[in-house]
Amino acid sequence: MPVDVQHILHSGSERIDQTLERLLPAPDTIPHSIHRALRHTVFAGGKRLRPILCMEAARMVAHHKNSAASYPDGVEELGSAIEMLHTYSLVHDDLPALDNDDLRRGKPTCHVVFGEAIAILAGDALQTQAYEVLSNLRCPAPAIVSIVREISIATGTVEGMIGGQVLDIEGERQAPTAAMVEAIHRAKTGALITTSLVCGGIYAGASPDRVEHLRVFGKKAGLAFQIIDDVLDVTQSSEQLGKTAGKDTATVKATWPAVYGIEKSLADAANLITAAFAEMEGFGASAEPLKAVARYLVERKH
Amino acid sequence: MPVDVQHILHSGSERIDQTLERLLPAPDTIPHSIHRALRHTVFAGGKRLRPILCMEAARMVAHHKNSAASYPDGVEELGSAIEMLHTYSLVHDDLPALDNDDLRRGKPTCHVVFGEAIAILAGDALQTQAYEVLSNLRCPAPAIVSIVREISIATGTVEGMIGGQVLDIEGERQAPTAAMVEAIHRAKTGALITTSLVCGGIYAGASPDRVEHLRVFGKKAGLAFQIIDDVLDVTQSSEQLGKTAGKDTATVKATWPAVYGIEKSLADAANLITAAFAEMEGFGASAEPLKAVARYLVERKH
Repeated sequence: MPVDVQHILHSGSERIDQTLERLLPAPDTIPHSIHRALRHTVFAGGKRLRPILCMEAARMVAHHKNSAASYPDGVEELGSAIEMLHTYSLVHDDLPALDNDDLRRGKPTCHVVFGEAIAILAGDALQTQAYEVLSNLRCPAPAIVSIVREISIATGTVEGMIGGQVLDIEGERQAPTAAMVEAIHRAKTGALITTSLVCGGIYAGASPDRVEHLRVFGKKAGLAFQIIDDVLDVTQSSEQLGKTAGKDTATVKATWPAVYGIEKSLADAANLITAAFAEMEGFGASAEPLKAVARYLVERKH
Repeated sequence: MPVDVQHILHSGSERIDQTLERLLPAPDTIPHSIHRALRHTVFAGGKRLRPILCMEAARMVAHHKNSAASYPDGVEELGSAIEMLHTYSLVHDDLPALDNDDLRRGKPTCHVVFGEAIAILAGDALQTQAYEVLSNLRCPAPAIVSIVREISIATGTVEGMIGGQVLDIEGERQAPTAAMVEAIHRAKTGALITTSLVCGGIYAGASPDRVEHLRVFGKKAGLAFQIIDDVLDVTQSSEQLGKTAGKDTATVKATWPAVYGIEKSLADAANLITAAFAEMEGFGASAEPLKAVARYLVERKH
């Protein structure tokens, strides 16, 4: 049976939007400014790719155990917590002291609208709120504890998101090397994508060895997605991207095409996806929707 | 048997320092700058009051259940996670966009030494690392989940630390009222102090009604500690405090003495502690060390 990727992406992002709407404090909650800032950043047109990957991993594990099963009950709350963490990283990345970006997806960034102080605190609050959501997940307590551990490591300084951000800042002073670009991509974006898949699997009760296959799948596919992001930044216009195109090359940012060129970048992404798919063999036909989403992400043109 | 408060404070802070030393990544971990920044801020001379209150609450609960029991195994890791969260809030509060403080406890603040970008990320990282530590606590998984929930609410925007910080920023534009000062204190500092006690109790396996007594104790005692902090800021010199004294009155910050004067502030703090102690009656003599620490904190002169 063919997989309708557009339907998965559309219904998945709608489901995450509705869940975020329910989980975030209402905009008239005191203090007003921070709650308006949270909603401004969370509902700024994100594609919800990490939560969708998380939900598809959970559905795959559930379906492989019982072919009548679909998305595990409440998995959209796990996906929403992951989206909060992703959004917190964007809010802080955009700050004047970091990337100093005034626009994201064509809209003014949090600090432009609410000021730097509230933007710093809004990022902080999204991280905090994510852990509150995790503490209320509808899965057994040991699974929640594993998910908290996975997510905190994936967003941390040693091999996670913050570490990648620091490497990126430090790397701006020198010409990018292949090792540096790969290290930054794996930590800055790869770790949270990988943990989205891993935690989806844990939520659905995957065995430890299945979780490890999801981890390897995530590492390879996550790197492929980032390579495609890098390529699109070079080849697309500002209008299509909703941000300042070519910004990464202008500041000699550490990107895959800057080191390897566009042709090899596209080939690397395709090879990584093939290798990632090999990890999903044990899930049989249950893996088709997740694989279709991953294939779409490396073949997209915008 | 008399309680040796100085010994509790000294050995408690030493134990927390040793645990933080073990839990934080080594300073030569890559990327270097962020790991050096974490240690700079965490080992800047904090008194470790929140972890000490947490450990004493846990000891009280354990001792009340079994008079041969002392501190529950591993409770210093819970205390260290709470100290990381407290430190993250200080690092971000000190940033130029917030309080713009160059000194804390007589030492240059994180952004002065490492720059704003690393200071923002170091604060983020301390929050992240705290949750990683919580996920590894040596207590049953349901207790860990409860602790994650308590701590995320206590540091959040609705009734927690970030919300209090926002109220404080918003309040700077107007003359402080009694209701405003109390709301700020309860959220900005009271919530984390309360949760330190509550989580210490949960860690030691306290029953739900005992946990609620600890919560009321924490709310009253936490407010008393903050009132004393406010009073000391007015009455002490910069040298004794290691920060710019009188800064709160200079900017008409929302403080207890600014609304009520010093004499009534001292009386309020004493009355709050008496009311807090009434909550501890069910713990009998097991509560003496915790009460002695609380009494010391409202009677301290610096």
